[in-house]
Amino acid sequence: MYTGVNMKVERRIGAKAIATTARRRDAAETKKAILLSARAAFARSGYDGVGLREIAQAAGVTAILVNRYFGSKDQLFSEVVASTMVNPGILSSETLAPGRKGADLSREIANALVAKTAPEAAQLDGFLILLRSASNERAASIWKENIERHYEKSLAARLPGRHAKGRAGLILALIAGFQIMRQAVGTPSLSEANPKWLIQELTALLNILVERERLE
Amino acid sequence: MYTGVNMKVERRIGAKAIATTARRRDAAETKKAILLSARAAFARSGYDGVGLREIAQAAGVTAILVNRYFGSKDQLFSEVVASTMVNPGILSSETLAPGRKGADLSREIANALVAKTAPEAAQLDGFLILLRSASNERAASIWKENIERHYEKSLAARLPGRHAKGRAGLILALIAGFQIMRQAVGTPSLSEANPKWLIQELTALLNILVERERLE
Repeated sequence: MYTGVNMKVERRIGAKAIATTARRRDAAETKKAILLSARAAFARSGYDGVGLREIAQAAGVTAILVNRYFGSKDQLFSEVVASTMVNPGILSSETLAPGRKGADLSREIANALVAKTAPEAAQLDGFLILLRSASNERAASIWKENIERHYEKSLAARLPGRHAKGRAGLILALIAGFQIMRQAVGTPSLSEANPKWLIQELTALLNILVERERLE
Repeated sequence: MYTGVNMKVERRIGAKAIATTARRRDAAETKKAILLSARAAFARSGYDGVGLREIAQAAGVTAILVNRYFGSKDQLFSEVVASTMVNPGILSSETLAPGRKGADLSREIANALVAKTAPEAAQLDGFLILLRSASNERAASIWKENIERHYEKSLAARLPGRHAKGRAGLILALIAGFQIMRQAVGTPSLSEANPKWLIQELTALLNILVERERLE
């Protein structure tokens, strides 16, 4: 009977473990659904233009649940911003592959930037969230933290030499400005320019930031 | 009596002219008040965030009068955008003074850009209107027209050599991106960087666009 009791206990523990796993899986799925709903909503309407209730509704949950999982609109926004940086459209792991150095790295960033901002390409949702939220101070501060933690760090690590952080910041500024002007505003000087010419000019600009301080 | 009649007619014409002048002056003052009210409102809340009624109220007139003077919200927005370009904060007539050429022109633009985006400097309202409106398609299209007509044209005229328009477009992209990252987002890599170093790097970048095609 000793063994029997033990088995019963084990069975009980087993059932509990399965139930916990199921709950955890449900929680993970729900969290994912909320994040996706929030990401689409923030890309469409920016930080100010969206309420937790709207995000919850689109994810099929209550606003109370969104609050329980994410704590606040700011924390949810922060997780959305971080999620857009996991697979960056331009500074992707392919663009920043360890083998690329110097002019090769500059050219790859220029290639990706021109391809992703082509007039027929959909605007990257991370960029839309930035554009539609940057004028709100709290949202801007969340962007600042995430840009520093994700983009600047990985980019600066690829820039041997002095002022790596500042050079990474200037590269990000050039990328953001080019996206705004070519895609969001759509000035013909950039949207109608020969892509090869744009890549050539952007490579030269980026190379100043990638190479110069290393050479000095 | 002939003379008397004539004098009476002249007095009448004179009175009419004065009344017309007064009305014109009133109209000009009212239009100016509406434009100022609209400029402040669009800088604060962007194209989507402002209604004609709110703008009218702040200017002390009715929405009907705003419509009579400007035709539509789009036309009013367009005139506001054009008004921000009359005395540009960065590409000012001083920065673009005819005497400045080549590296001197690049350095002056870099100087103005770093000064106007200093952490303690107020954000330029033209820039805020762009940032807070660029995600609306109609507003973006109004920006596009005005950027082309005002900034690009005057800048391209200062860039001898090939691809002047494209180079002007890239300079404007660099300016916009630097403003967003250093001032709106406030990434420390740019907001805490040594201004002299920033001017040096921006001068090198701008000089690629100002000088290179001329030299080739």
